[in-house]
Amino acid sequence: MGLSDIEQELQAKADFFEDILKKEFLPEEKGCARTVIEAMNYSLLAGGKRLRPVMMYESYGLFGSREDAFTVYPFMVAMEMIHTYSLVHDDLPAMDNDDYRRGRKTTHVVYGPGMATLAGDGLLNLAYETAVLGAIKGKKLSPYDGEETTDRYLAALRILTKKAGIYGMVGGQCADICAENSHEPDTDKEKEILSYIDENKTGALIESSLMIGALLGGADFGAVSKMEKIGSDIGIAFQIQDDILDIEGNMSELGKPTGSDIRNEKSTYVSLYGMDEAKEKVYSLTQEAITLLDEFDGDSSFLKRLFEYLIYRKK
Amino acid sequence: MGLSDIEQELQAKADFFEDILKKEFLPEEKGCARTVIEAMNYSLLAGGKRLRPVMMYESYGLFGSREDAFTVYPFMVAMEMIHTYSLVHDDLPAMDNDDYRRGRKTTHVVYGPGMATLAGDGLLNLAYETAVLGAIKGKKLSPYDGEETTDRYLAALRILTKKAGIYGMVGGQCADICAENSHEPDTDKEKEILSYIDENKTGALIESSLMIGALLGGADFGAVSKMEKIGSDIGIAFQIQDDILDIEGNMSELGKPTGSDIRNEKSTYVSLYGMDEAKEKVYSLTQEAITLLDEFDGDSSFLKRLFEYLIYRKK
Repeated sequence: MGLSDIEQELQAKADFFEDILKKEFLPEEKGCARTVIEAMNYSLLAGGKRLRPVMMYESYGLFGSREDAFTVYPFMVAMEMIHTYSLVHDDLPAMDNDDYRRGRKTTHVVYGPGMATLAGDGLLNLAYETAVLGAIKGKKLSPYDGEETTDRYLAALRILTKKAGIYGMVGGQCADICAENSHEPDTDKEKEILSYIDENKTGALIESSLMIGALLGGADFGAVSKMEKIGSDIGIAFQIQDDILDIEGNMSELGKPTGSDIRNEKSTYVSLYGMDEAKEKVYSLTQEAITLLDEFDGDSSFLKRLFEYLIYRKK
Repeated sequence: MGLSDIEQELQAKADFFEDILKKEFLPEEKGCARTVIEAMNYSLLAGGKRLRPVMMYESYGLFGSREDAFTVYPFMVAMEMIHTYSLVHDDLPAMDNDDYRRGRKTTHVVYGPGMATLAGDGLLNLAYETAVLGAIKGKKLSPYDGEETTDRYLAALRILTKKAGIYGMVGGQCADICAENSHEPDTDKEKEILSYIDENKTGALIESSLMIGALLGGADFGAVSKMEKIGSDIGIAFQIQDDILDIEGNMSELGKPTGSDIRNEKSTYVSLYGMDEAKEKVYSLTQEAITLLDEFDGDSSFLKRLFEYLIYRKK
């Protein structure tokens, strides 16, 4: 199957997610809070691959029935809101100070940095509100035993909150900012920090997407742990591929200038291990993830194609 | 009873809360995320009256047994983390640009605006992580029927998330920023917006503190609604008293310069209704809250004294 096929498949799944988001979950732009809601929706509808909700949906389908998949929708939406808030805050003048993302003006450029800060806060809050409401509604609709269903929802909420915070994404962002501000002279230590950043800044939300999908789909503890490992592999591979593209990528395909890591003297997997080892690592991590997927009985063919596509992506 | 007695009582309850916070809930300052955790703890330990967790605890005690009060601790801590994140982000250069709060340097002055943004995000995430973990643990420990306990925790999570977001505090903050940026020529419309701001920016977290305490303490739906109304009254009264103190207050007692609303041409209850009507409103809202408290059988004497104290406070 060529790359364009999987790209089309992914696009169709992203469109499916965006339909759900628009029809059922976007807050209405009205009342005194209208401006912040507009800024939130502007950020949420800025496109993107919707990788995290798509991965959550696929992971759910690997264990559960796709007919009940509406029970995982609120968590898919919550995950995308968390990812989006992190981009809005990352782009702020106080952070990376980026004026454009995917060819579109960033939220703070359109709404000002104060309102953009608030829009990020609003998205993070709404993510948890949406997930909690999903748990309350899902509990009522579930055909399974009430107690077990509740335990699964509470466990999903725990994973969602933990992987987004200081023991996950926020922790990775902190280490990233600290690494930029002070160069670590010890190479081994530097490699350790980079590994932490890649696993947490990029990996944590991919891990939790796969874990929550599996958990709500009915997977047992061992399977959820395996999905965490798969998410970690893919998250790290994704980040290393990003670092590779920053050197070898084509600016017009990427939609952003290349070479920024070298200009900023930023330590990356490529700068610490060399280009050959970086490419080998992306490949071996992806293969490990695919091998782990094979241990499940369900249909993981789309996830495997998606993971392979992510290795060879040019943008 | 003189003011100094209630101030001492309040201080003792705030100290009690701070002990719990420090012993059981503060994240450890270690690992690659150390800096953001330090910034979060710096913000959390900046003092303050701890009004929201104290109100939640008292509301719990009005309906439940104080011996089981540990089940509400995680929500008290979550509430204070949410309040603290909102202050950290409010103080940012992109928002109010305040360098000092309660005589102490604000988080962004010490850690930089990027890290302070991240610390606020970390606090908001940790608030929900703490509350969810509290629900999971509390469910196991509860002496009551499992299903009802879970429903109460999920309802508490729903109130917590809703009142902090666009349908609560974030909504109020948005309306406040918008009102500062564009003067509303229609006085009736201006009064309506001000009422929305006071109810949501200040009132929402006080409402949810009282509601969650009551709910986890075992209150029925009607009682939780009454606590919402009491919280709304007290939140609005608290905000109007703030506006009064900005004009009549003593700078050395307040710890901040007075007259800022007039200098900034900010619409407040005092500017729209006059000083006499403002004072009358603070008094009547507080009396209404106290009358509503009298409808419950439990011991609400501390809450009543606290509400009366808040009317006459000088800082």
